Amino acid sequence: MSVSAIENGTVIDHIPARNLFKVIQILRLERIDSQITFGTNLESKKLGRKAIIKISDKFFEDADINRIDLVAPHAKLNRIRGYEVVEKKVVEVPDIIIGIAKCMNPKCITNFENVITRFSVVSKKNVALKCHYCEKITNQENLQII
Amino acid sequence: MSVSAIENGTVIDHIPARNLFKVIQILRLERIDSQITFGTNLESKKLGRKAIIKISDKFFEDADINRIDLVAPHAKLNRIRGYEVVEKKVVEVPDIIIGIAKCMNPKCITNFENVITRFSVVSKKNVALKCHYCEKITNQENLQII
Repeated sequence: MSVSAIENGTVIDHIPARNLFKVIQILRLERIDSQITFGTNLESKKLGRKAIIKISDKFFEDADINRIDLVAPHAKLNRIRGYEVVEKKVVEVPDIIIGIAKCMNPKCITNFENVITRFSVVSKKNVALKCHYCEKITNQENLQII
Repeated sequence: MSVSAIENGTVIDHIPARNLFKVIQILRLERIDSQITFGTNLESKKLGRKAIIKISDKFFEDADINRIDLVAPHAKLNRIRGYEVVEKKVVEVPDIIIGIAKCMNPKCITNFENVITRFSVVSKKNVALKCHYCEKITNQENLQII
């Protein structure tokens, strides 16, 4: 264990290492005052290289956690109280994504007018998003978080 | 200790917690394949809230480390081999800063032409930078890393 246990709070495990900073950005962890520990490029049989985040004394709403689906589709979230896991949650990719992601088509209306992005998820394993407006596909490699 | 010891590599301690992500950005840690652990919002008598970074199997050049001066002026860097500290370095703010920082004056030539920024450091404790071109002062609060 390179990052020690926490007494109370949230542990997010099985984040793909390359997307750790995207998860931090989505959850706005740079604005949280609680103690946070991160480990990245840890070995994982499933993911190759994984990251883990432990946030003391912070419990996220499901709506906030669901925002990380796109960049950490197989993340596991544990809520901890008194060093014990009191709730487990597996993050799942939803069918529709509203906001959060940017359409990769520079000509898409969402990139030059004040329109909230909207995508249908056409692949959940290697995330691919089809834009509701221009129908272009934004995939994991081109995914930018707004 | 919320972040465990490393066998070989670099430990950067006494980073002001609010600037952890700026240090990560300056050192381009998101592109490093080594194991990295971070702790933030840890208690520090000197800094209020501090952050620490431990990077396994990575030794930075002094020129790279000096780039964090601006956002972590009192950081302490230890080089570790076989769990032992083999070199200590205290980061110091230089007198002249070239590149790295953005001038906060929107009318400054460096913000609309392809000119590398250049500042003289007028205060080292609470970093304040005087632009070589427009003479406006950019302080810690307005400091943006390029």
